[in-house]
Amino acid sequence: MAETDGSAPRVSAAEVQAQAEILQKYLDATEAPADLDDDRVRVSAFVAKHHNEGRKIAVVTSGGTAVNLEKRAVRFIDNFSTGRRGAATVEHLLERGYAVVMLSRQGSAAPFARTLQDATSTAFDSKFMDCLVVDEATGAVRIECKADTAAASLVQAIREHQSFTKNGMLLHISFKYLSDYMLKLRMCGECAAPAGPSAIFILAAAVSDFHIPPDQMAEHKIQSRSGPLSLDLSQVPKALGVLRFHWAPHSFFVSFKLETDHDILISKAQQSIEKYDMHMVVANELLSRYKRISLVTRAGETIVTKRSEEEEVEIPMVEALCAAHAQFCSDAPKA
Amino acid sequence: MAETDGSAPRVSAAEVQAQAEILQKYLDATEAPADLDDDRVRVSAFVAKHHNEGRKIAVVTSGGTAVNLEKRAVRFIDNFSTGRRGAATVEHLLERGYAVVMLSRQGSAAPFARTLQDATSTAFDSKFMDCLVVDEATGAVRIECKADTAAASLVQAIREHQSFTKNGMLLHISFKYLSDYMLKLRMCGECAAPAGPSAIFILAAAVSDFHIPPDQMAEHKIQSRSGPLSLDLSQVPKALGVLRFHWAPHSFFVSFKLETDHDILISKAQQSIEKYDMHMVVANELLSRYKRISLVTRAGETIVTKRSEEEEVEIPMVEALCAAHAQFCSDAPKA
Repeated sequence: MAETDGSAPRVSAAEVQAQAEILQKYLDATEAPADLDDDRVRVSAFVAKHHNEGRKIAVVTSGGTAVNLEKRAVRFIDNFSTGRRGAATVEHLLERGYAVVMLSRQGSAAPFARTLQDATSTAFDSKFMDCLVVDEATGAVRIECKADTAAASLVQAIREHQSFTKNGMLLHISFKYLSDYMLKLRMCGECAAPAGPSAIFILAAAVSDFHIPPDQMAEHKIQSRSGPLSLDLSQVPKALGVLRFHWAPHSFFVSFKLETDHDILISKAQQSIEKYDMHMVVANELLSRYKRISLVTRAGETIVTKRSEEEEVEIPMVEALCAAHAQFCSDAPKA
Repeated sequence: MAETDGSAPRVSAAEVQAQAEILQKYLDATEAPADLDDDRVRVSAFVAKHHNEGRKIAVVTSGGTAVNLEKRAVRFIDNFSTGRRGAATVEHLLERGYAVVMLSRQGSAAPFARTLQDATSTAFDSKFMDCLVVDEATGAVRIECKADTAAASLVQAIREHQSFTKNGMLLHISFKYLSDYMLKLRMCGECAAPAGPSAIFILAAAVSDFHIPPDQMAEHKIQSRSGPLSLDLSQVPKALGVLRFHWAPHSFFVSFKLETDHDILISKAQQSIEKYDMHMVVANELLSRYKRISLVTRAGETIVTKRSEEEEVEIPMVEALCAAHAQFCSDAPKA
């Protein structure tokens, strides 16, 4: 965005280089998830295909990251995040013609599938079983929704899911642990980089602040008999600046902030713009976040709100993100 | 069991009293979940009805407990546990005529519903959406399983679920956090106590060993900017002995152990019998636990194994638990 508003990024190249070195050390010491190489092939082919066909690409991260306390993890620190905002964002991006790579926490809300939760239950539980009916004639298993409107929404969601899946517009990549997330974020950054300004990164995942570095982690389950337990957690290496400046330096970046106080929220959003040169920060106040969202840029704060009882706030939010991304693309120097 | 094998329990009344006082202090300082009172009414009525009708009662705990790191929890420590063994155990107890109270972690495996995971996907995700088909003529939503055998199992599971639900044989109580689990365990203990020897407690939940005591917990989210984070975790107050001797002193108790080494496993199982006067301990070795289970009592070790490729090991396990419970009931002094 340095090109468009005339101001230089406030973060120094030396600072990003220092962060990159710390992050590199962490990634080198981290065991790669078994599916990383397969995922790289899939994301790389997905981006190449859609970029060649002239489509914009979105990489959306979603859900919370878990942090191992032991190498053979029995215990972990988790972050509360349902992933619903990320799932909603992906749906609306698809509707606007984006090809979407979704990097999300296993079991967190999935696009279209989230409709099942409103229509039936939150999980495969007893309440969900109560919604299943066996057709005595055919032996087919039917889902009966709690309400007719929910049934109609579910049918629509299944049709949309099938349509976008058939057209290959959505690619799912999953993580559970912070270490998987970090390695896959780098992979997605590197794979989407060739799309340059046509790629938008929407970083909605709730990433852990603290972890136990791989070289300090106990091999086996920490035993409970030996009295209290002291856990020394280190700060997680910062990845935002490295992704922005090193991995995908020509793309458009949106990050997220959540706070309870409006003034602290806006100040933190501005810091993300200063420190990491984010193009836009989606700033959420805890209590009003499903009604009202602040979009913060170097130019200032824009507020988007739910336009009716039925419409979710992610619709105007995605409209605004897409408009800003379109402007960014037309301002970008042509290759 | 002191009555049946002639030996006195090895734990002293003073020791249990000391544990009870520590636990009481913890429970007093713990905020009760909003549904605790409703759950108490439901469990109490359930036990009274089935006990009056001459049925045996099982209280089965299942899944892992989460531990808050902040009062308004954003972060928590979690335990890896799918809850599948608990869910399987509940199904086989129902088949043997038990009325079952299941105290389980929200979202962990549920009886009968676990079949959906084998037949479709692990969660409401994109893979599950791929299994949903809209009937164009009626608009009904059908679940198409990956394989015919899975479809047959799902149909059978739905029918069994409906039958046991219609007959009111299964009551679900849920928890997420350790604090909810502890308060609801006491509630279940107190509510099932009137059933005396007819009640069996099967304690399969993976309960956290460490927590932050309520009076030491930060009110708000721990901020990440101030360098590393040191967490001092205390041992969770012991509840097993208090449940066994104070809350439901005349019932039958089964607890669970999981280790990688057989000798350590059996020694730990014997300790649970010594320290908490468990009637039986289900001892699992990590790698072989879905094929072979050791059942440890004061009398020694009995091994149960899977009897065929199709039959799960929880079937002979539940048979053995029920046989031991039946013996306990017939040995118990008549009221």
